[in-house]
Amino acid sequence: MTPTTDRLQGIFSPVLTPFGADFRPDPDRFTRHCRWLLDQDVGLAVFGTNSEANSLSVAEKRRLLDGLLAAGLPASRMMPGTGACALADAVELTKHAVDCGCGGVLMLPPFYYKGVSEEGLYRAYASVIDGVADERLRIYLYHIPAVSGVPIPLPLIERLLTRFPRIVAGIKDSAGDWSHTAAMLQRFQPRGFDVFAGSENFLLATLRGGGAGCITATGNVNPSAIVRLYKTWKHADADEQQRQLDAQRAAFAQFPMIPAMKAAIALKTGRADWRHVRPPLVELDAAQQHQLAASLDGVDFTMPNAAALA
Amino acid sequence: MTPTTDRLQGIFSPVLTPFGADFRPDPDRFTRHCRWLLDQDVGLAVFGTNSEANSLSVAEKRRLLDGLLAAGLPASRMMPGTGACALADAVELTKHAVDCGCGGVLMLPPFYYKGVSEEGLYRAYASVIDGVADERLRIYLYHIPAVSGVPIPLPLIERLLTRFPRIVAGIKDSAGDWSHTAAMLQRFQPRGFDVFAGSENFLLATLRGGGAGCITATGNVNPSAIVRLYKTWKHADADEQQRQLDAQRAAFAQFPMIPAMKAAIALKTGRADWRHVRPPLVELDAAQQHQLAASLDGVDFTMPNAAALA
Repeated sequence: MTPTTDRLQGIFSPVLTPFGADFRPDPDRFTRHCRWLLDQDVGLAVFGTNSEANSLSVAEKRRLLDGLLAAGLPASRMMPGTGACALADAVELTKHAVDCGCGGVLMLPPFYYKGVSEEGLYRAYASVIDGVADERLRIYLYHIPAVSGVPIPLPLIERLLTRFPRIVAGIKDSAGDWSHTAAMLQRFQPRGFDVFAGSENFLLATLRGGGAGCITATGNVNPSAIVRLYKTWKHADADEQQRQLDAQRAAFAQFPMIPAMKAAIALKTGRADWRHVRPPLVELDAAQQHQLAASLDGVDFTMPNAAALA
Repeated sequence: MTPTTDRLQGIFSPVLTPFGADFRPDPDRFTRHCRWLLDQDVGLAVFGTNSEANSLSVAEKRRLLDGLLAAGLPASRMMPGTGACALADAVELTKHAVDCGCGGVLMLPPFYYKGVSEEGLYRAYASVIDGVADERLRIYLYHIPAVSGVPIPLPLIERLLTRFPRIVAGIKDSAGDWSHTAAMLQRFQPRGFDVFAGSENFLLATLRGGGAGCITATGNVNPSAIVRLYKTWKHADADEQQRQLDAQRAAFAQFPMIPAMKAAIALKTGRADWRHVRPPLVELDAAQQHQLAASLDGVDFTMPNAAALA
C-alpha cells in the first residue's frame, strides 16, 4: 500500500506481543510478526490493548520499538500506543516515538481515575503535547471506554482539534457504537481528523462515511481479507466481503480475544510459545484450543505464509 | 504509637503528593507533610489513590520515597503503594520498598483489563511475589473496585493466603460495602490477615470486628480525631466519636476529595501551591474553595500545627 499522503490510513493492527514462558517479550518473534503484517499491507499499531501494552513497562516498549527499527522496519508505518496514567511515562514514550519518525501515536487518556472531567482530560492531552513539544507529533486519540473506563467525548475532541490542529490527527473508536463513529465522521473527518474504526465490523461503514480505515485486533490473524475490503470497498461485493469478515471475527470473539489470537498463531505456526500471555490474562486451556481450532476450520480463514512467523 | 508487634496497625493515610505549578512533585513539602502525619500518629501509605500515585512514574515514586528516608523518616511506618499494570513496574517498586525496610506495601491488581479471571489475578500477584523473592515482603491487597475496576474476590484472597502466608499480610477494603469487610474480618483476620477499613466511616466497626485500623484519605487533614477513636474505641463515647468523624468526612466528600483535601491544606497553611493536582484531576475553582471553607467552619475540624506544613 503506497501512501498517497503523509496521513496514516488503511488497515492497522494492534500487534500481539510474543512472550516466553518467563513472561519476557520475545523481540525476534515480535519483529518477524511485524514484518509479516507489513507484507500483508497492515500497519503497525504496536502497543495497543491487544498488544498487552499496559502490561509492559516503558523501558520494555522502548526496547521493542528500537528492535523493530534496528531490523529495518519503516517507522512511517508505525502508530505505537504511548498513552499512560503517568504524564512522565506518556511524554517519554511519545517523544521517543516521534524521534524515531513514527507516523503517529495512539494515545489512551490516563485511565486510573474514573469520572474525570473534560477539563482534566483536556489538560492531560495538552500536557503530553506540551511536554513532547515537537511539530512532527501526530496523535490518534484512543476511545475504548469498556476497557479504559475513560471515554473521550465529542466536546473534548472539538477542543483539542481547535487548539492543536494537525497534531491531533484522528481517533481509534473502539466503543462499538456506530452512532458515535458516525458523529465523528460527520463533524471532524472533514477537518482532517482521521477516524479509524476500532474493528473491521465497522470497516465498510467507516470507509463509506469518509473515514481512514480501521485498527483491528484480528488484523493479526486475518489480514488479507480485511485489507482486501479496504482496497476494494467500492466494488459490488463489498457488503458480502463485510459479512464474511464479521463471520471470521466471530470465530475469535467467542473466546477471550488476546489468548485466542495467540493460540491461533500457535496453531498455524506450530510454535506453542505463541500462546503465552502476561498476567492478568490467561492463555486458552486445552478444551478452548480444540474449540478454537474447530471454529477456525468452519470459516474461510487464512494466514498467508504463516511459516514466516515460526 | 509504639507498635506492639511488627505487623502494621492503626491509622494510615494515603499521603497527598504536593506538586508545583509545573506538575512536578515537591519533595520538600512532601517530606514535611509526612513528618507532620507521623507526629499525629498517622502511618504513611504513600502512593495511594489519594496520592495521585498512578499519575507518577516509577522513577518519580522512587525519588520521593528515597527523599523521605534521606530525611530520616522511619521506613517501618511506611506502606507505599506499589501495584502497577506492568509486572516489571510492580516488581521494581516493590523490591525497592522492601530493600528500604518498608513495613509493607499496598498493592493494586493490574487495572487496565477489566473482567479478568481469578486465575489471572492470582498469577499477577504471584508473579510480583516471585519477582521480588524476599521473605521480608508484606503485601496488603488493595480492593477499590469503583476506581480500579478490578475487584479482589474472597476466593482469590483465600488462595493467596494459603500459598503465601505472612507475605500476603492484609487488605485495604475501599469498596464501601460493610458486608464484604465483615466477611474478611470473620474469615481471614484470625489467620493473621489484617483488615484495614478504606475510610474512617468503618473504623469503629472494623476495630470491633478485630481489624487492624483504617487507611483513609482524610487522615491527611483530620488526623487527630481519627487517631483518637483508634486509641479509645473501647470508651463509652466511641459511637459519638464515630458520628463526629462521619460528619467531618462529609464536609470533604461533597467535593472531589483529592482537590478538596489539597485546598484545605492550602487554606490552613496559606500555601496556595498545595492546590495543584496533576491531570486528569482538576483543582477546586474559586467558588468551590469558598464553599469548602464554609463547610469546614461548620464542623469541628482541626489540623494541629498546620504551620509545620507551610
